[in-house]
Amino acid sequence: MIRKYSYGVPYDTEAVVGAYEIGMDLPSWLTVEEEGRRFSCLLAEEEQVFGLGEQVRGMNKRGWRYVSWCSDDPYHLETARSLYGAHNFLMITSPDRTVGLFVEDPGRVTFDVGYTRRDRLTIETEGDGTALYLIEGGGPLEVAKMFRQLIGRSYIPPRWAFGYGQSRWSYFSAGEVKAVAEEYRKAGIPLDMIYLDIDYMESYKDFTVNGETFPDLGALAAELKEQGVRLVPIIDAGVKVEEGYPVYEEGVQKGYFCENEDGTPFTGAVWPGWVHFPDVLNPAARAWFGDWYRVLLDRGIEGFWNDMNEPAIFYSRARLDALEGERRDAVAAGKPAREALASLQEPVKQLSNRLEDYRSFWHNTPAGRLRHDKVHNLYGGSMTRAAGEAFVRYAPDKRLLLFSRSSYIGSHRYGGIWTGDNYSWWSHLLLNLKMMPGLNLCGFLYTGADLCGFGGDTTEDLMLRWMALGVFLPLMRNHSAMGTRRQELYRYPESRKAFGEMVKLRYRLLPYLYSEFMKAALRDELYARPLAFLFPEDPMAREVEDQLFIGESIMIAPVYTQNAGGRYVYLPERMKLVRFRTAETWEEEVLDKGHHYIPVALDEVVFFLREGHLVPLSDGGGCVEAVTADRLTLLAFGEGAAYEFYWDDGVGVDYEAPEHFKWLHAGTSGEVFHEYPGD
Amino acid sequence: MIRKYSYGVPYDTEAVVGAYEIGMDLPSWLTVEEEGRRFSCLLAEEEQVFGLGEQVRGMNKRGWRYVSWCSDDPYHLETARSLYGAHNFLMITSPDRTVGLFVEDPGRVTFDVGYTRRDRLTIETEGDGTALYLIEGGGPLEVAKMFRQLIGRSYIPPRWAFGYGQSRWSYFSAGEVKAVAEEYRKAGIPLDMIYLDIDYMESYKDFTVNGETFPDLGALAAELKEQGVRLVPIIDAGVKVEEGYPVYEEGVQKGYFCENEDGTPFTGAVWPGWVHFPDVLNPAARAWFGDWYRVLLDRGIEGFWNDMNEPAIFYSRARLDALEGERRDAVAAGKPAREALASLQEPVKQLSNRLEDYRSFWHNTPAGRLRHDKVHNLYGGSMTRAAGEAFVRYAPDKRLLLFSRSSYIGSHRYGGIWTGDNYSWWSHLLLNLKMMPGLNLCGFLYTGADLCGFGGDTTEDLMLRWMALGVFLPLMRNHSAMGTRRQELYRYPESRKAFGEMVKLRYRLLPYLYSEFMKAALRDELYARPLAFLFPEDPMAREVEDQLFIGESIMIAPVYTQNAGGRYVYLPERMKLVRFRTAETWEEEVLDKGHHYIPVALDEVVFFLREGHLVPLSDGGGCVEAVTADRLTLLAFGEGAAYEFYWDDGVGVDYEAPEHFKWLHAGTSGEVFHEYPGD
Repeated sequence: MIRKYSYGVPYDTEAVVGAYEIGMDLPSWLTVEEEGRRFSCLLAEEEQVFGLGEQVRGMNKRGWRYVSWCSDDPYHLETARSLYGAHNFLMITSPDRTVGLFVEDPGRVTFDVGYTRRDRLTIETEGDGTALYLIEGGGPLEVAKMFRQLIGRSYIPPRWAFGYGQSRWSYFSAGEVKAVAEEYRKAGIPLDMIYLDIDYMESYKDFTVNGETFPDLGALAAELKEQGVRLVPIIDAGVKVEEGYPVYEEGVQKGYFCENEDGTPFTGAVWPGWVHFPDVLNPAARAWFGDWYRVLLDRGIEGFWNDMNEPAIFYSRARLDALEGERRDAVAAGKPAREALASLQEPVKQLSNRLEDYRSFWHNTPAGRLRHDKVHNLYGGSMTRAAGEAFVRYAPDKRLLLFSRSSYIGSHRYGGIWTGDNYSWWSHLLLNLKMMPGLNLCGFLYTGADLCGFGGDTTEDLMLRWMALGVFLPLMRNHSAMGTRRQELYRYPESRKAFGEMVKLRYRLLPYLYSEFMKAALRDELYARPLAFLFPEDPMAREVEDQLFIGESIMIAPVYTQNAGGRYVYLPERMKLVRFRTAETWEEEVLDKGHHYIPVALDEVVFFLREGHLVPLSDGGGCVEAVTADRLTLLAFGEGAAYEFYWDDGVGVDYEAPEHFKWLHAGTSGEVFHEYPGD
Repeated sequence: MIRKYSYGVPYDTEAVVGAYEIGMDLPSWLTVEEEGRRFSCLLAEEEQVFGLGEQVRGMNKRGWRYVSWCSDDPYHLETARSLYGAHNFLMITSPDRTVGLFVEDPGRVTFDVGYTRRDRLTIETEGDGTALYLIEGGGPLEVAKMFRQLIGRSYIPPRWAFGYGQSRWSYFSAGEVKAVAEEYRKAGIPLDMIYLDIDYMESYKDFTVNGETFPDLGALAAELKEQGVRLVPIIDAGVKVEEGYPVYEEGVQKGYFCENEDGTPFTGAVWPGWVHFPDVLNPAARAWFGDWYRVLLDRGIEGFWNDMNEPAIFYSRARLDALEGERRDAVAAGKPAREALASLQEPVKQLSNRLEDYRSFWHNTPAGRLRHDKVHNLYGGSMTRAAGEAFVRYAPDKRLLLFSRSSYIGSHRYGGIWTGDNYSWWSHLLLNLKMMPGLNLCGFLYTGADLCGFGGDTTEDLMLRWMALGVFLPLMRNHSAMGTRRQELYRYPESRKAFGEMVKLRYRLLPYLYSEFMKAALRDELYARPLAFLFPEDPMAREVEDQLFIGESIMIAPVYTQNAGGRYVYLPERMKLVRFRTAETWEEEVLDKGHHYIPVALDEVVFFLREGHLVPLSDGGGCVEAVTADRLTLLAFGEGAAYEFYWDDGVGVDYEAPEHFKWLHAGTSGEVFHEYPGD
């Protein structure tokens, strides 16, 4: 059952599809105060809290105070309050009851989940109105599904987006891009995507291409596509202020940029220097900005990543002026050293992403003119919506790849997300895993972290362990920052073979991973599920936060500790351990329910197969389009194992056509080569 | 066997006690290049590398590049290269061989431990000379002991320093300090120390006291000592430049400060504003600076912590001038936004702790006038040596408490260390544990981290788990930074009882913990030992990095994960689980060798007792001086369990007197009340 409550004048974020009656009385366990700006309830000792999407800490969010406020923060430290997305859904669950809460509010929202008091949840909003949805009925899987139905079907990318992608900030030229593809081919490692970071553009101008370094992007895209590799360029939120640049000139002329109070375009500085921000909360401006993607679509580009759309602002003129003012009375004024240092440091620290700036520009929304900070959390997702809506107009029958850095619940219908700039830390490998259920709960199915770590120098063993997790995540992209150690897999002679086998395994697993993704998307279900959701009556399963069910058949338990030769794994039921030493060869071992120490070598990938279930394996391929379902190897546990297999052409949108769904059945031996279609 | 090799003109850091012959030929497994500036060797797959003292990452240091360069860095991130100390000892160990390497070099030293190539260790120095010591013979415990004998006996604090201490940046007045003591007394939580951070001083001037906020420090110290509580003030490295301040005036007059190239005192800015740094590498200046501690000793102070002695430098005049220069051509010059932002940010980032500054001042050392960067890593430890040597002159028969932030091997003879400014992160709880063996190997026995975390807001569950670790560490101090959530234990009504019981348990365990510390110090052994050192033939034991043996009888395995109800523990042999629900009551359970999942509630402390061993428990007390060994409860595993018990008056220095050593034997029941002395 879903009940809606309304306080003040809520902004319609369009997160919810369909209309709901407004309820009158909150249930007695939930207290509302401050005219709907504060909600609170007690948390029983055994109650866990899941959700909040892209956030720090564990799957169970208890014990910290989180703030929904889209922020450009690459560190994701335990004491961070906000990351790139703002995902205001959480679920309180225990064996006794499960309830979901969705706070529809486009401004800053604070979730104190047992931080100030261990036994209390407090949610505080700051805007002019909030809609609250309460969802009850069944356990965590049922409540999750009801919420997902409330917010509408998740974005579905083309199947090739489930391939392996290589990224770097930056590949600076067509030659460099071709060399990366060539090295992957020489190493025999499958590859489906090469990502272009900001340096492919001319002076960081959206929808332009640097003619010197990428003289013919269309030809490059075509040449790579021949090899099964797609080019995926970045698009940033800010539009460079430059006379003669048509995006700028048209936007100014039509009044499609975010405005200062006086109606002139707001100016901030980002990569291109001074920019205006397209007012993607204005439907007309959103359509206009989305149509610009055609410049690249027309050159054969089939996928994009949207970045810097919190929006990140390096500085504004106002902040620079404040900096100058602060400087005048710094050290010379004879302040104590710490204050002097602070008066030098703080204004510089406070140049970027400041609330003062977010309070200084306006949107023309369907609900009228609104100051940015009131609707801040909608911006990035609305930029993605701009592209997603345009893609449907441009190619209604074809899926295109799209994912974003910033997002809100609602934008999950238009694109995926990656979890932003992380670091080459073992703790971020684990965080990658831990974020998955929260993201899925909030509608983001096509998602993943920068494998092997974006910032900082990676290590070879971290890369091996992270890739072994990446094998199972929808978005499998290796990305790294300028100035850091290179992360292309072919650069590590000692581990090249192991990396290659892991990526090949991904392509062998594709029939399973893709099927599971599609079923989750089409049925509003979860692709990655915590043990707690499947075994809510098992106290040990409820506690496990470093294992995940991926789809219906398998559980993963990646190693995330340096110099560890394995790890502990809790099996909530009897399962079959499957250990891949290469993509071709594996070992199986049935293990009883309970605690196990599982050795895992650096070059191995393991998972655990549920009884009565099976995993269809393809013969692999050098790219996703080379992977067929003509012949499947069924890796099964139990004679009666059966599997509902989804397979379509991977690019069309007739998702529900019945011929895409087939049942596979394990042979009497448990594992058989299976001529498909076979049932 | 210890062999010494010499390259160039090594500086005598006095890390080593005694003289060693210079060997001629390095063993063939070790390669030396670049005239002794690079050493390298292969690392076999099964070889582990321990040591490097205060550093990031695991007990086994393989897989990262570390730099010995004393640095003021509170984040201790996985990609950090340097922390506050510089500890150039490491040990390569496998079941086949164990070898220790000590690089005596006071400048920057880089240890690439399987980072660039997974199978190679490379050590690079940058100075004018290096002495290399190779230690072989026996396993890790034997090599560790030989190294510790090489560097001389570790600092031994008074026994009261094993009590619980409460710190805060800052307690601002005598009244505030008294209130803290009073609140602890009212809560019934034992307390031995209250720490004074920088605000007790007048304008941050060393060896002064703010007369308004602390009108009579001597009376305050005496009043608190009546209650069993010692005041422990901080001393910073920098001496404020201020006419009329005698430390400043005398230092200038005697030429005892670090000098610019022209012989005038070098000036940097730290908390007090402009300061000079005492030239603690000059023996005469060191003695002079050390004698200043008498100002506080004479007021009844018996312990100090030395801080900011890397030395941290907020900025220098030269850096400020550089900042001004950089600013002139920042944004207005029309640079691209990122460069403009960088040209605003970088000079500010580069104000503090800069190599350029460390290259701009000189020391008058016994080996002549040397530029600071050549001997940088000796500075902080030499400040501690200044105090330690002065304390022996001042009170030759009495121990005083002393610990430092910065340190080098050699300074372990003069004081302990804490591991500097950490954060209220679960990862720093684990890092606290992981650092212990490396610190012990490098001679630092009296050591610990800021419990519950210095920076960032703590959480109640993190505090409970961190305190449960702190119970077993020599330096048990709860410290937190200005602006963060308060961490005094009495402030948490829900957990006050649990905190109290944990601290009381510490006092009950004192006979054991103190005995083990004293035996380790007097015999040049380790207080905290990895499982790998005790069970080198057990591959699983070799891999465990989140458990520790504390002394001869017990193993600890703290919980370090939020919302976890327990953890996995590997027992390398049959052991007895001892679970304390309060300081008075416990449960015991014998567990077989192997893997176990051990539930541990937030208010519990558990440890694992070795067979044939016992732990003597006192009846507890409100402060260490109230703890007696008149009656001991022997917590034993096995009928024949025996224990060598060390107990002295806790303040004198006749450490080896035979009457301090006694054997305790378990009664036939395994646990008996034991009238002491009983054998």
